[in-house]
Amino acid sequence: MNDLKSIVEDLLDSYQQHPDLTNMQAWRLPTRDCMNDLTHKLESLLYPGLIDCVRNRSDLNYEIGNKLSEVRMTLTDLVTCCLEYANHYPQNRMKLPQAAENPCAFANQIVDTFLRQLPAIRSLLLTDLHAAYHGDPAAKSYAEIILAYPGFRALTVYRLAHNLHTQGVPILPRMMSEYVHNRTGIDIHPGADIGPALFIDHGTGVVIGETTVIGSRVKIYQGVTLGALSIPDPDKNDCAKRHPTIEDDVTIYANSTILGGQTVVGARSVIGSNVWLTYSVPADTKVLFVQPDLRMRTV
Amino acid sequence: MNDLKSIVEDLLDSYQQHPDLTNMQAWRLPTRDCMNDLTHKLESLLYPGLIDCVRNRSDLNYEIGNKLSEVRMTLTDLVTCCLEYANHYPQNRMKLPQAAENPCAFANQIVDTFLRQLPAIRSLLLTDLHAAYHGDPAAKSYAEIILAYPGFRALTVYRLAHNLHTQGVPILPRMMSEYVHNRTGIDIHPGADIGPALFIDHGTGVVIGETTVIGSRVKIYQGVTLGALSIPDPDKNDCAKRHPTIEDDVTIYANSTILGGQTVVGARSVIGSNVWLTYSVPADTKVLFVQPDLRMRTV
Amino acid sequence: MNDLKSIVEDLLDSYQQHPDLTNMQAWRLPTRDCMNDLTHKLESLLYPGLIDCVRNRSDLNYEIGNKLSEVRMTLTDLVTCCLEYANHYPQNRMKLPQAAENPCAFANQIVDTFLRQLPAIRSLLLTDLHAAYHGDPAAKSYAEIILAYPGFRALTVYRLAHNLHTQGVPILPRMMSEYVHNRTGIDIHPGADIGPALFIDHGTGVVIGETTVIGSRVKIYQGVTLGALSIPDPDKNDCAKRHPTIEDDVTIYANSTILGGQTVVGARSVIGSNVWLTYSVPADTKVLFVQPDLRMRTV
Repeated sequence: MNDLKSIVEDLLDSYQQHPDLTNMQAWRLPTRDCMNDLTHKLESLLYPGLIDCVRNRSDLNYEIGNKLSEVRMTLTDLVTCCLEYANHYPQNRMKLPQAAENPCAFANQIVDTFLRQLPAIRSLLLTDLHAAYHGDPAAKSYAEIILAYPGFRALTVYRLAHNLHTQGVPILPRMMSEYVHNRTGIDIHPGADIGPALFIDHGTGVVIGETTVIGSRVKIYQGVTLGALSIPDPDKNDCAKRHPTIEDDVTIYANSTILGGQTVVGARSVIGSNVWLTYSVPADTKVLFVQPDLRMRTV
Repeated sequence: MNDLKSIVEDLLDSYQQHPDLTNMQAWRLPTRDCMNDLTHKLESLLYPGLIDCVRNRSDLNYEIGNKLSEVRMTLTDLVTCCLEYANHYPQNRMKLPQAAENPCAFANQIVDTFLRQLPAIRSLLLTDLHAAYHGDPAAKSYAEIILAYPGFRALTVYRLAHNLHTQGVPILPRMMSEYVHNRTGIDIHPGADIGPALFIDHGTGVVIGETTVIGSRVKIYQGVTLGALSIPDPDKNDCAKRHPTIEDDVTIYANSTILGGQTVVGARSVIGSNVWLTYSVPADTKVLFVQPDLRMRTV
Repeated sequence: MNDLKSIVEDLLDSYQQHPDLTNMQAWRLPTRDCMNDLTHKLESLLYPGLIDCVRNRSDLNYEIGNKLSEVRMTLTDLVTCCLEYANHYPQNRMKLPQAAENPCAFANQIVDTFLRQLPAIRSLLLTDLHAAYHGDPAAKSYAEIILAYPGFRALTVYRLAHNLHTQGVPILPRMMSEYVHNRTGIDIHPGADIGPALFIDHGTGVVIGETTVIGSRVKIYQGVTLGALSIPDPDKNDCAKRHPTIEDDVTIYANSTILGGQTVVGARSVIGSNVWLTYSVPADTKVLFVQPDLRMRTV
């Protein structure tokens, strides 16, 4: 085998030449591997006895306290890193709150708020759980939904990531949502605003964009996109509201695409499969794709 | 940092208030992590030398015997847990066989039957392997299909999970199918009834519902849904046959949607891409989506 | 519990009967598990400080040298195994270069070339990174794209796998592309020929076939298939060019399907959502799916 020396040198040169593909700063960033561990621990705090086994019910106080303490330490560290990185990142698309100027103190405050809101997040997820159970005849028990429904898993991680995103944490919430997108095929941006009792069935291919607003008791099937109508120049135009608003009690069947920041689907409406919708529809509307006649012939 | 005490207490209160999101019973449930280990071992029993390396061909007897013994122990434990849970679960959508009243003995019997049927499952999977090899010019060897084709991997886990589901195991088969849905984007309910020599190409977004029936030598491409036409109230209506029947030698091209328990696609029919079908078609029919003219203009 | 003896014997018989589902040859094959480790190390060589933490900038020389040495050893071993397997595989769809007759020497040469081209691969990936940053208002930093964008991850692994595929390595490149398909829902065959600055947004369901050609600065959204129009008999017909050609600066919106080896989408064209295209369009064409009127009625 040849000497590696020249290969190492060429690679080091390449790092110098293309620093956009490196992080050589003093501030670490979260790794994909640590997302695995963090998300697992958060899920096990939300659903005790379903993600990990509970050793002893009467000792739960110690188990949970210990796990919370670990999560607080890890999460505070990761949030601090992300804030430090964002403070020193030469590009300027990340809009940080004033408080981010003191990353350590701000991270402590964010994580404290986040942990205090875990019971409220559980209450929201309970509505999602019941929505799945009542919406799907194939669901035989609550445990089955928590253990095996990708839509419920994606919502779990979304509701956690959304809390951090709303508090101003950069990078980390997006890594959490991608963590669960990898595992479910469901891509919910942590910036989306989603009400209680959402049921996403099957879910592969679902995309819910950054500025989407979803009301209560909405049902969404696989392959549905709630997306942007056109792509503004990220550094020029106003990118404020690019994705649609879905009001309460709407159902959107498989593979439909609803686009645009001005598009509102009114309450209780039903959007059939394969619909492509770029304008608003009033409340109580049923929208069906009128498929052209199918051509049939004998093989 | 603040004291965690009040956060721990609030979370423990939340567990009390919302027990649907917990499992505090004496009966453990399988965890997602143990699915990884179990499925890996089962695949390596099916495909020796392809999932793990085989140390020595003449010692295969010992390797396989040892692995089978491990799998039997783990699987018996998991099946017992699922049966115990289902016996004591307050909701009643899980219909258990009479034998489930004695979970330990029933689990032993189920696992024994399952392991005895592994050679028959291998024979079925051999037909799937050959279907993939003959159906895809990009497939260069059998090993490539076993190691790198998501459709074949999804079928492998489906055929194992279907066996357990048919024997009356709750929860676990659905966790196995979600395990492989996570990894392939292919969502096959373990209740579906699938004949030999199915080839699923690419596969991301494929959904095959609980009461689907698929004959022999069928081909299915990415994004195909075999689903329910409308969603019955799970606790009221008859949910018996909600998904379609696909007869022998049918091909269904990418992103088509076939819905409804009464819908039968006759033998040797070809369903083109993007078709949306909610009624039966006779044997030997070619069904094409007649796309409206595309609008073309110079940019 | 019953004795396992007869189960073990039946399974060993099954291996004898159906050797297509085994690898009992002297030549190991890569396992899915080792793909995890290999791909992780390759990514961390491409993006130092983003996949793993960099301990100390001034010691980077040692870290990178050590990691390169590990990767060279592992990769040389895996490539040798694949070549040995292909040399002795009874089917003959794998066309190997003459040099493959001496697997060890050929593997050394391939891996040396591969490692020397890592800086050039980084330069290509830099164009992909910038394309994502400029194409998506939701992208707040380069790090976010590298850490959390599935399209960028899929392209990273594709560009590595394509290099090995082009040099004549069997099986392994396809396992790499399936590794990342599992994690992103994006299925790019390592044989595809993809120019610089490709941006794949969201990406779940994207399929890019073996003989696809993609020019520079192309944008592709979720659910797009660049596929084959019909499936030739793999052992008879000419399978040379089955997938389309996409020229420079083309944009293809979500869920469109472009099929056929003779289909060319001319430069700067825009293909709207849900288009199904099986013939060529000239440069500077905007192609829109004219959706039939939607049927609306009050619920």
